[in-house]
Amino acid sequence: MLKIYGDLRSGNCYKVRLLLALIASEHQWVHVDMLRTDAQDEKILALNPSGKIPVLQLHDGRILCESNAIVSYLAEGTSLVPMGNFERAKMFEWLFFEQYSLEPYIAVARFIQTFLGMPDSRLDEYKALHERGYKALDLMNSALAKSEYFLGDSLSVADLSLFAYSHVAHEGGYELANYSNLQRWIMSIQEQDGFVSIGE
Amino acid sequence: MLKIYGDLRSGNCYKVRLLLALIASEHQWVHVDMLRTDAQDEKILALNPSGKIPVLQLHDGRILCESNAIVSYLAEGTSLVPMGNFERAKMFEWLFFEQYSLEPYIAVARFIQTFLGMPDSRLDEYKALHERGYKALDLMNSALAKSEYFLGDSLSVADLSLFAYSHVAHEGGYELANYSNLQRWIMSIQEQDGFVSIGE
Repeated sequence: MLKIYGDLRSGNCYKVRLLLALIASEHQWVHVDMLRTDAQDEKILALNPSGKIPVLQLHDGRILCESNAIVSYLAEGTSLVPMGNFERAKMFEWLFFEQYSLEPYIAVARFIQTFLGMPDSRLDEYKALHERGYKALDLMNSALAKSEYFLGDSLSVADLSLFAYSHVAHEGGYELANYSNLQRWIMSIQEQDGFVSIGE
Repeated sequence: MLKIYGDLRSGNCYKVRLLLALIASEHQWVHVDMLRTDAQDEKILALNPSGKIPVLQLHDGRILCESNAIVSYLAEGTSLVPMGNFERAKMFEWLFFEQYSLEPYIAVARFIQTFLGMPDSRLDEYKALHERGYKALDLMNSALAKSEYFLGDSLSVADLSLFAYSHVAHEGGYELANYSNLQRWIMSIQEQDGFVSIGE
């Protein structure tokens, strides 16, 4: 059986959980705390030299890391991954955008505010993140003015990945009230059959 | 004909140039300066709302952005992209690692040192980048103790992407002398038929 090591409160881990719920795939979830102990750290480092979660372990022991590599691999052959080479490349374009231009600004701001309780020592960093985080949200909101989902008319892995952090951006101090396309898209994902919330 | 907008001194743009050289693919390179003018900026924003280079334009006008999405798309069907789903996912694992854990630390340090001439105002940021940049280089050097290339015995798009910034890490103040596996791997890429240097 598929085994996933991760913390469901982490957006990167939640991507995998949400995908597996939508495609109704059986799996075993091994909880590894985001704020982890040394013992948990050693366990993850033995599987993934970067020490990051989530980590996917296949039934034969093979390991795959990096949340977006995991979700695109697990969704292969479903309607969540486009068939054509160019459309698939556009999916990866959004996945790289997510990791480079969205995640570092939302995930870190959310971590500082919600998981560390906003320590004074990180307040300057927190504020600096918002400028680039809003730039990414602006761009996403504009893209969603042109189509229902990021790749057009149907839901794809790109949506799930972008959803993971953008729908909890308020936990990092972001205000989403003016992003009407983004809000419509967030609701549409929450209404999918099999949907599960972050942290559950 | 394929058209690429970019600056050959940028590692992200160079990835595309290096790939096209190795697979001997005809293309038109449109120079867009990294430190660009407002006019160049507007031209790129019209093609790519994020304003980033490189940008690939296909003969029919379709646009693809994000360097790693571009190189994996252009290399499709060559020996540089593995056939199997899992091996391909491992390629993307390294491509996501490159954009999240390597590029932000090497590219920005190199930009501050080599392109901005190390202004005092960015010295603290420059020093802070090195810790995580070395962590990525350590991990790459360890991975290359196990196999000749990142995916095993043969060169792949993962190598080209990771090569782009790691081989010029010294331009961002990194010392590579102790990374013997990395050095062996860099030479092996430089010896490939069709190889072109960064900036050329």
